Amino acid sequence: MTHSAATEAPTVRIEVQVMYFDTDCGGVVHNTAYLRFIETARTLLATDLGMDLAAMAEDGLFPVVTRTEIDYKRPGKVMDKLEVHGRLEAFDRMRLWLSFEVRRPSDGTLLAQSRQILALVQIPPGKPLPLPEAWTARHPHLRRKREAQSPN
Amino acid sequence: MTHSAATEAPTVRIEVQVMYFDTDCGGVVHNTAYLRFIETARTLLATDLGMDLAAMAEDGLFPVVTRTEIDYKRPGKVMDKLEVHGRLEAFDRMRLWLSFEVRRPSDGTLLAQSRQILALVQIPPGKPLPLPEAWTARHPHLRRKREAQSPN
Amino acid sequence: MTHSAATEAPTVRIEVQVMYFDTDCGGVVHNTAYLRFIETARTLLATDLGMDLAAMAEDGLFPVVTRTEIDYKRPGKVMDKLEVHGRLEAFDRMRLWLSFEVRRPSDGTLLAQSRQILALVQIPPGKPLPLPEAWTARHPHLRRKREAQSPN
Amino acid sequence: MTHSAATEAPTVRIEVQVMYFDTDCGGVVHNTAYLRFIETARTLLATDLGMDLAAMAEDGLFPVVTRTEIDYKRPGKVMDKLEVHGRLEAFDRMRLWLSFEVRRPSDGTLLAQSRQILALVQIPPGKPLPLPEAWTARHPHLRRKREAQSPN
Repeated sequence: MTHSAATEAPTVRIEVQVMYFDTDCGGVVHNTAYLRFIETARTLLATDLGMDLAAMAEDGLFPVVTRTEIDYKRPGKVMDKLEVHGRLEAFDRMRLWLSFEVRRPSDGTLLAQSRQILALVQIPPGKPLPLPEAWTARHPHLRRKREAQSPN
Repeated sequence: MTHSAATEAPTVRIEVQVMYFDTDCGGVVHNTAYLRFIETARTLLATDLGMDLAAMAEDGLFPVVTRTEIDYKRPGKVMDKLEVHGRLEAFDRMRLWLSFEVRRPSDGTLLAQSRQILALVQIPPGKPLPLPEAWTARHPHLRRKREAQSPN
Repeated sequence: MTHSAATEAPTVRIEVQVMYFDTDCGGVVHNTAYLRFIETARTLLATDLGMDLAAMAEDGLFPVVTRTEIDYKRPGKVMDKLEVHGRLEAFDRMRLWLSFEVRRPSDGTLLAQSRQILALVQIPPGKPLPLPEAWTARHPHLRRKREAQSPN
Repeated sequence: MTHSAATEAPTVRIEVQVMYFDTDCGGVVHNTAYLRFIETARTLLATDLGMDLAAMAEDGLFPVVTRTEIDYKRPGKVMDKLEVHGRLEAFDRMRLWLSFEVRRPSDGTLLAQSRQILALVQIPPGKPLPLPEAWTARHPHLRRKREAQSPN
């Protein structure tokens, strides 16, 4: 995992290799498998942003996906070595906007592009919580005002 | 599964019950599980539209998701009895637009809303094929011209 | 779902249709998908035995698989309509022994055979609980003494 | 991945971190997730044994699990860093016997133990093929005669 300086957008890069369980009988990676690859990248990005997800889970606090958009561009195949590149695009008081690309470095192919919106939720009762205050100081250019037009 | 008259949009309705494998440690249905529920509905809608998916798979012909949008509204829980409602929104020569809602009938809650674009692909070589000609005669009001503005 | 009289072993039968997400690039059902089919059958058998799994989950009480054996006999394919037959083989104070067969009724093929051992666990702290006392009265011939040789 | 000298049993070791999609509402790793971890280890062990699984898939040749036994000893949790240790136990003309342990190095806990039998299958038509001849020369002490008592 790598991430850029605090004045830029936090990013993450992970490597995954396509297993048989990621594929379907079309001979290619199943559409839901990319969302597992992206979850793995997202989880490491959250860790990189200072979240202790194991401790949070003990306290009933979970990052929750509220929206996914994903475009499937080219098929992946079993044993492909893929990279997921993730980036924190923006946040407001309660939500995160993230973007992801899944690429096959061996031939430079872009397989999938995705944007997700996440919230931090206390379960039970299923109530969204504010994101860490410190983020605004650390990434002021990514902070969206609550009343701003949603980028989505 | 039910479907409406030919002059209306083809629709499908399935029931699913949430299993432990559909949930995660947040105590709620995992975001990717809804996409499995939706795939099941989509597959039955395709069958209802006259596609013999088993025979098509033997011939290397597969419906492929090229885009998914999904909004997660409310959480589902283990053992919840859910309904997925699917609808063919439109099609052009090569693509289908579908929409889905996942609902919990016991309390009328809308859990998730999704739109997907699909294509029919010959694998190998991974080449998109035209959709059945007969659809245009059967559902003329859903047929989009190729040069038309994409609804997405 | 069907189940036999109380003097016989409780059984369950469910129907599942193989979806693309159940298959892998070998063109057949992935080995883990059968365990999802079996979990669905197991869950309905538990319901049939009087367990309110939704209420139990609210109380932090979960059926937990402590052992699985599964033999894969013949491959399943996408769109296959399969049946899972499950049976409570035995129980002692803390454990259940279950057996399952996955069959394709269209040609009578046995695809997979499995045996599982389950316990009822309070999470947290992860402590096994005794099974319902009432089962011994209802199914005395399936009750194993604690000190008995494990059938497994 | 590491593996031992040719005169010993080929082994593999991989690291995986538990993601939300690996867990269920019991708050612990779902029983089928361990089989994905084990598949990842198994796939890398096959690569280590000289199999080019990507090329084999192009030729319709797949490693197929014919039997799994798995004992679940202790629960894993989200974000746990786990290790899977795999070992080629034996092989005969058509089958491989493998064993696996899933451990949490941070506290030395053994979470799961598994044994699997695999075959190499040409799909279509679903016909088992002999394993590579070279293995017998390389690992003579692991070679079982066909007529020998199955270790399983």
